[in-house]
Amino acid sequence: MNVAMIGGGFMGKAHAMAYAAMPMFFWPAPAIPVRKVVVDITQEAADDARVRFGFEESSADWRSVVERDDIDVVDIVTPNDSHAEIAIAAAKAGKHIICEKPLARTGEEAKPMLDAVREAGVIHMVAFNYRRTPAVALARKFIDEGRIGDIVNFRGTYLQDWSADPDSPLSWRFQKNVAGSGAVGDIGTHVLDFARYLAGEITGVYAVNRTLIPSRPVASGHLDKLGAGGGGAGAERGAVDVDDETITLLRFANGAMGSLEASRNAYGRNNYLTFEVHGTKGSLVFNYERRDELQVMFADDPADARGFRTIYTGAAHPYGEGLWPIPALGIGYGETKIVECYDLFKAIAENTQPSPNFEDGYRISQIADAMIRSGESGSWVEI
Amino acid sequence: MNVAMIGGGFMGKAHAMAYAAMPMFFWPAPAIPVRKVVVDITQEAADDARVRFGFEESSADWRSVVERDDIDVVDIVTPNDSHAEIAIAAAKAGKHIICEKPLARTGEEAKPMLDAVREAGVIHMVAFNYRRTPAVALARKFIDEGRIGDIVNFRGTYLQDWSADPDSPLSWRFQKNVAGSGAVGDIGTHVLDFARYLAGEITGVYAVNRTLIPSRPVASGHLDKLGAGGGGAGAERGAVDVDDETITLLRFANGAMGSLEASRNAYGRNNYLTFEVHGTKGSLVFNYERRDELQVMFADDPADARGFRTIYTGAAHPYGEGLWPIPALGIGYGETKIVECYDLFKAIAENTQPSPNFEDGYRISQIADAMIRSGESGSWVEI
Amino acid sequence: MNVAMIGGGFMGKAHAMAYAAMPMFFWPAPAIPVRKVVVDITQEAADDARVRFGFEESSADWRSVVERDDIDVVDIVTPNDSHAEIAIAAAKAGKHIICEKPLARTGEEAKPMLDAVREAGVIHMVAFNYRRTPAVALARKFIDEGRIGDIVNFRGTYLQDWSADPDSPLSWRFQKNVAGSGAVGDIGTHVLDFARYLAGEITGVYAVNRTLIPSRPVASGHLDKLGAGGGGAGAERGAVDVDDETITLLRFANGAMGSLEASRNAYGRNNYLTFEVHGTKGSLVFNYERRDELQVMFADDPADARGFRTIYTGAAHPYGEGLWPIPALGIGYGETKIVECYDLFKAIAENTQPSPNFEDGYRISQIADAMIRSGESGSWVEI
Amino acid sequence: MNVAMIGGGFMGKAHAMAYAAMPMFFWPAPAIPVRKVVVDITQEAADDARVRFGFEESSADWRSVVERDDIDVVDIVTPNDSHAEIAIAAAKAGKHIICEKPLARTGEEAKPMLDAVREAGVIHMVAFNYRRTPAVALARKFIDEGRIGDIVNFRGTYLQDWSADPDSPLSWRFQKNVAGSGAVGDIGTHVLDFARYLAGEITGVYAVNRTLIPSRPVASGHLDKLGAGGGGAGAERGAVDVDDETITLLRFANGAMGSLEASRNAYGRNNYLTFEVHGTKGSLVFNYERRDELQVMFADDPADARGFRTIYTGAAHPYGEGLWPIPALGIGYGETKIVECYDLFKAIAENTQPSPNFEDGYRISQIADAMIRSGESGSWVEI
Repeated sequence: MNVAMIGGGFMGKAHAMAYAAMPMFFWPAPAIPVRKVVVDITQEAADDARVRFGFEESSADWRSVVERDDIDVVDIVTPNDSHAEIAIAAAKAGKHIICEKPLARTGEEAKPMLDAVREAGVIHMVAFNYRRTPAVALARKFIDEGRIGDIVNFRGTYLQDWSADPDSPLSWRFQKNVAGSGAVGDIGTHVLDFARYLAGEITGVYAVNRTLIPSRPVASGHLDKLGAGGGGAGAERGAVDVDDETITLLRFANGAMGSLEASRNAYGRNNYLTFEVHGTKGSLVFNYERRDELQVMFADDPADARGFRTIYTGAAHPYGEGLWPIPALGIGYGETKIVECYDLFKAIAENTQPSPNFEDGYRISQIADAMIRSGESGSWVEI
Repeated sequence: MNVAMIGGGFMGKAHAMAYAAMPMFFWPAPAIPVRKVVVDITQEAADDARVRFGFEESSADWRSVVERDDIDVVDIVTPNDSHAEIAIAAAKAGKHIICEKPLARTGEEAKPMLDAVREAGVIHMVAFNYRRTPAVALARKFIDEGRIGDIVNFRGTYLQDWSADPDSPLSWRFQKNVAGSGAVGDIGTHVLDFARYLAGEITGVYAVNRTLIPSRPVASGHLDKLGAGGGGAGAERGAVDVDDETITLLRFANGAMGSLEASRNAYGRNNYLTFEVHGTKGSLVFNYERRDELQVMFADDPADARGFRTIYTGAAHPYGEGLWPIPALGIGYGETKIVECYDLFKAIAENTQPSPNFEDGYRISQIADAMIRSGESGSWVEI
Repeated sequence: MNVAMIGGGFMGKAHAMAYAAMPMFFWPAPAIPVRKVVVDITQEAADDARVRFGFEESSADWRSVVERDDIDVVDIVTPNDSHAEIAIAAAKAGKHIICEKPLARTGEEAKPMLDAVREAGVIHMVAFNYRRTPAVALARKFIDEGRIGDIVNFRGTYLQDWSADPDSPLSWRFQKNVAGSGAVGDIGTHVLDFARYLAGEITGVYAVNRTLIPSRPVASGHLDKLGAGGGGAGAERGAVDVDDETITLLRFANGAMGSLEASRNAYGRNNYLTFEVHGTKGSLVFNYERRDELQVMFADDPADARGFRTIYTGAAHPYGEGLWPIPALGIGYGETKIVECYDLFKAIAENTQPSPNFEDGYRISQIADAMIRSGESGSWVEI
Repeated sequence: MNVAMIGGGFMGKAHAMAYAAMPMFFWPAPAIPVRKVVVDITQEAADDARVRFGFEESSADWRSVVERDDIDVVDIVTPNDSHAEIAIAAAKAGKHIICEKPLARTGEEAKPMLDAVREAGVIHMVAFNYRRTPAVALARKFIDEGRIGDIVNFRGTYLQDWSADPDSPLSWRFQKNVAGSGAVGDIGTHVLDFARYLAGEITGVYAVNRTLIPSRPVASGHLDKLGAGGGGAGAERGAVDVDDETITLLRFANGAMGSLEASRNAYGRNNYLTFEVHGTKGSLVFNYERRDELQVMFADDPADARGFRTIYTGAAHPYGEGLWPIPALGIGYGETKIVECYDLFKAIAENTQPSPNFEDGYRISQIADAMIRSGESGSWVEI
């Protein structure tokens, strides 16, 4: 199956690796992804990406690429503002699509994307990879099997500090016209994906959003290094027009309540994507910074042996047939993307929609919009 | 200094121990507390408490006791509904007072208590002992010294599961007429005390409160065993008219935002009283379940050596001159009460008001009231 | 029951607190300890200790005190070199005895102590308090009930850093004539107590012992502040003639193997007393720095839910009837001493020998001797 | 650069992934590895491996492959008993070589391998990948920069439980003629690599080795699933003639002491590869199960802010230029192998020997031999 990957940045690295590695891990593979064409902004950048990421061809013109007859799958790893245009064109050309998250800058922008893939009848996926962490999938399994009872409370956080320094650069992630929103869309949506995956549909939000650093040094170049580079105290500064932080209350369709906290100003937190779920028969706790582990507590354990179990995921857990043979050999970011790739091609091979797909992506964009609106209005927003 | 302790339950144990142990730890002591009289509901119970807790005398009549000339300090460790009456009588008799938390069932009830101690000119303290944990006091020290900059975010939780079982007994803690409120007043107020101690005054709250277990087996006897005893599936059930859980947004006077979660239905959490504080120069993290430890991250550490430090408190930290000589010999609940006792008698000896005192207790009752009202109205309540 | 406490330092504080608090916690108490006489080196020091520790009388002459008719229990909390003399005199006077660990400087010195208490028919205890931590007692319970199968491996450590600084003072703990040995006797013996408690009798040792800091500043005064005070770079230095560190292999009677590491030079470790026990059906892990917790793994758990459980000890665990009503209210050093006191007076009331008693103390001294000899000879020493 | 990979099992997966991914991560890459030929036991297995691992060709005859002119690098990922023969042939053919650990079954077997690569003048590497974990490389950096002073103690463990069940299958890892030794060679050598990397050369060992499970069910097929498959209570059993567990004392050239514990019978431990290093100015702690983290304590931190820092490795740490842009995106087993591949090709490009190379591999095999001999003789063995 031939893949055209649109975009050659940090996410391109992760996806390219997954195309190469997926069959190595999940074998026999549902399909062998062929890295056919990579597209970047300039032909020079695309050539560089071709060699680096092991693609056969390169191009600076995504439009012609997504229409090529020999392309089966289009992979969108560009900044948020181009997702819709590319995805709609790819759908019209009848391509299966995987799109980086968030699906679009707003729900309004995401809706025609969903319409397009539905009309085209293609397979579609949105790349909320973190739920592919085996420990997260194990949490879902415990819930599905009723082992922690009915869920009454969901608490999710995504805390980072790569941009907590006021002198870290103003990349596209801090610009509303490109990113749509800030912490809400960039990292908060990952928590929303966890919340819906584990506790079910979200029907209402109440949010407080804040911009803590109102201006940042203008970044040179188009690269997004996630704060690792550039900026500096002396540089020219531009305005940040997105949120740095949100604290949001969540109401679920099943009656559960919850909260979501996402922040780019949490010094000491790196990729602190966590959840704590309370059920009527037990609890689940996860922290992506220690992603090999799921903590689970079963209320019906003997009185003298109750407590959170720290489970290291391995062969006995979700995706264990493909990943490393013993627990704690180690799940990295790469492995989450390999699993994502596996689920995509499995869905294509079986002609079923994977999860999360554009429907989920659209819904999450709507919820993110609701968070922004709630923050502005100071009232609950139903979705 | 002669102490009359009103109440002989679990809290009486903790306080009696502190009176005996305080001078052993903090020496020379600001004063030697003498366990003069203990009061319980019946003379028989009081006699039992006298021997058990090492008091000289016992009584079933708190009114006459608090008026005795030879009593210097009145210690109120009864259920919440009797705090006000006893405290006001003690104040009128000119006694110094330490009162268990929450100060009263409501702010309205707490106000005359504050008025009474002010009018009497006595020393007054409310027993939010957890801030006396050396690690919490160290957090405050780091903040006071500007080592984590300006505080922008406070996140506090108090999660428990001793009453998560629907068949655990209906003690006074689940009855509004005695307790005032549920998780809000019982455990949420400890978080409020942390929040004000670390991040400053709270000016507004937005709360969602829920009762998850609407009825419980009626408990036999007057004892409050915190769920350790009684109840059972076959017993007669009574209605719970207080909250089991709250998720509250907090607005601080200094512009910081925050959240508070308190739950009695968090399976696997025992005494999970935590905070995470983000500042402009660092962060602080604490979990009372591992109370010997404070985690602190300083943003100006060298790039290759940045990360949370886990500090075990000892001689180099607050109260280190009185507690155990090396870190991690171990702070237990007892030690927090010994420190509280020390601060009380030091305040009496120096004739200064300790902190938190009735003013703080009144303020916290007001905030708790605001949480309840916000939950009912679905809107922010300013305090 | 009247207690005479010989010694008024840091350990005196811990023991005095326990006498006062024990009946408050364990009620009805097996007996009410009365703090009758405290003895210190000078009358002035003893008077000070009397007020501080709440004793009725004070004395500078331990010999006359241990022979008083009205004394039931003698408590020895002096440096190691005086244990034997006091204990033998107390035994001859027919007193029950609790003696701080290690029982003596050597096994040779401990033997007549054991002979004396046996001959006198008194109750005797050696104060290895750490095994009284509820989590440690719970580990023993799991082992006794066969829940982790046969033990095959024991790993214990006791790592500290209060004297890792070469300029921390030369207290009696670094002088062979007073202490007997260094890390081996002072902290290694606690690990030996754990090892024997959990894995059974030790029959052979192979040890490497080292003195890493050969001289230290001479300390002023007789006080032992565990490194918290004194010394300094400019002070006169004296030779250290005991070990700072040991790594010892252990052979158990039941065929298990193990290791013990004790160090005073482990920067960052405070009171890092740990064990890891592997059985044929599971494992146990404990770290005193987080002493409310025991970790246990049961091999027969379902494949998808295997992992260490973190159990916070409370009412459902050993000593839960007397300690705090819910887990993680908090076990401190004080609580371990309260439990020790309870077990002592229970033994006296029931006229049975508690554990560990002088027999255990003698055996541990023999093993410690064997560790020293093994270190000198470079060969296994059978005990 | 064309690679021939000999072996197509679990390790083949890891290496193949690294060849594909290395340039994606480290760009510009020192060289682009081309997956030229993969060799397995049968042509059928090799064909399968070719498709799965993305090689251009397949073969069942390693001898002819290693002599092909178009092969630059030979990668040996077969069981231990064939390492020597393949490596020597490859060296004679002038190929650069990477060989899985341990280099050989014994030092005696490893010596001619070292001789061969030396004589051939090729680049050689032994695949102790765990030291490529950024957190481990960071530990080395702190040591090199003197930030924890002189090392006095090294404690390393490698504990697993995938074969703790007596009914898990008898793979080649339990057969001396294939594996050379058991826990000593399979996992203990990883600890030896850490020990030499961090604390310097090892000059003597004293070991106790044991076989805890003397027989296991004979495994069907040649596959090594690390205990994930096969066996069962009813199957025919074969003898285990290697060790399951070792406890070893280590003596270092620089005067430091240490210990090593490796076990396949540590229930609850999965890939528990740890070290704790004490220096004269600080300490380092690492646990591969939480491999994104290094803990470091600097003794010269301010008295009130001393404690282990938990550092999540990222752009500011070793290999940060190639790995994920922010800490805790996540290092998995895959990433360690990508770094290893990078270091190999960098060494080839720069014509310098990487570390660890066959010299290290030979030395480690000698030390492992010494551990076996020491276990048999009960005495120290100098190396």
